[in-house]
Amino acid sequence: MKLARIRHAGEAHWAELDGDTLHLTRSMGGPRTGQSVPLDPALLLAPAEPGKIVCVGRNYLDHIRELGNDTGDLPTQPGIFLKGANALAEPGGTVTRPDWTENFHFEGELALVIGQQARDLTPDTALAHVAGYTCGLDLTARDLQKTDLQWFRAKAADRFCPLGPWLETDLDPRDLRVQTRVNGQTRQDGRTAQMIFPVVDILVYLTRYVTLEPGDVVLTGTPEGVGPLDSGDTVEVEVEGVGTLVTHIG
Amino acid sequence: MKLARIRHAGEAHWAELDGDTLHLTRSMGGPRTGQSVPLDPALLLAPAEPGKIVCVGRNYLDHIRELGNDTGDLPTQPGIFLKGANALAEPGGTVTRPDWTENFHFEGELALVIGQQARDLTPDTALAHVAGYTCGLDLTARDLQKTDLQWFRAKAADRFCPLGPWLETDLDPRDLRVQTRVNGQTRQDGRTAQMIFPVVDILVYLTRYVTLEPGDVVLTGTPEGVGPLDSGDTVEVEVEGVGTLVTHIG
Repeated sequence: MKLARIRHAGEAHWAELDGDTLHLTRSMGGPRTGQSVPLDPALLLAPAEPGKIVCVGRNYLDHIRELGNDTGDLPTQPGIFLKGANALAEPGGTVTRPDWTENFHFEGELALVIGQQARDLTPDTALAHVAGYTCGLDLTARDLQKTDLQWFRAKAADRFCPLGPWLETDLDPRDLRVQTRVNGQTRQDGRTAQMIFPVVDILVYLTRYVTLEPGDVVLTGTPEGVGPLDSGDTVEVEVEGVGTLVTHIG
Repeated sequence: MKLARIRHAGEAHWAELDGDTLHLTRSMGGPRTGQSVPLDPALLLAPAEPGKIVCVGRNYLDHIRELGNDTGDLPTQPGIFLKGANALAEPGGTVTRPDWTENFHFEGELALVIGQQARDLTPDTALAHVAGYTCGLDLTARDLQKTDLQWFRAKAADRFCPLGPWLETDLDPRDLRVQTRVNGQTRQDGRTAQMIFPVVDILVYLTRYVTLEPGDVVLTGTPEGVGPLDSGDTVEVEVEGVGTLVTHIG
């Protein structure tokens, strides 16, 4: 099932996508209201209402190598950082390239949205707490990652997390193709099976330390191929079984 | 005016503290409902409903020196990191010392809660966006600050941000005494006038990059004197003009 979040008659609603029709629902995955609208030209929003966005850094070995962070040892635990809900941007939206970074990078990723409160998950229970999967674009001010005390400006600025186009609820996250294209050219092409810490391990690790709430977003890390963006570029993140998230750089 | 958040009849409410009486209000700083309860034995909650908790590291020179982080140059910009709402803990509450850190530190701080949406604030407009000031305890797994990729476990774990006991709305934050006592012994005793980046500068800086929403919390950094906590300790953070936040370590 595909769950979208849309703006309709001036208000945000959850909806279920069936073919080309969006059936409005009372909540994320909740019962239909009876109202429906066509997918085109509905205004899609980021399909999540997070408190926090929890991100995994350095989760694909080839990406660790391309940034020169390979120490010869694999990480023994996921490297985690946070964004706030201010970072969300809608599918098909425009993100302005900030004037305070010299090196504004794309990182295409598998993202997931939490469906029920999660603490101390086990490998057996972890995936049942996921509402669905989607595409995430972890926009990054690469230069400030190195110079700032923590990755705040580098990762957590407004609209640094385009998400969408919708949640796919029925998906096995263990071996999905994740591609990023810039202006139609493929720049990242990985599979989630290459993750150092797969989705289950990420959720078990995170919930040893923090409670994940319904609506929270988890970004699972990016494969190799990251690179800089310029004004006028169009970025597409495609996750197998989900669809494609399009973001315009303004 | 002092604004508290309390649990009453099983639900969270905002209230206005007048002497020893809590007058329930419809929202943070909103009109009274007509109901009132005595302060003792009301169950106080953390006085904020944040999306994000934005923290400043290394904002007092003597604290930078005590941790061995003095490079000879003052920071040219605030060092920012994030916690989520999962980190909040109520005044008078117990925080369990985690078994995954060898060095669990207290950091007493002036905290503030945002009252209205804030983006691109100027020095003239910044303080008008603050709903009130309170005491914050920035609990820190000091050992993991050095070993982890980012300060996630070190700073953002559940209940790592006791806050309270209430918001003081009428306060000039520029020169307030901030003290931390552990088991009655004074361990930190600074003044906000010693901040490298005063409250106004912090808000102007933050809102160049992120939108602050009503309810968001900002922690302004800690003076020198930080140190480890053990089970059984009681930590008091006192901010002049606000009151004292008591936290028990379990």
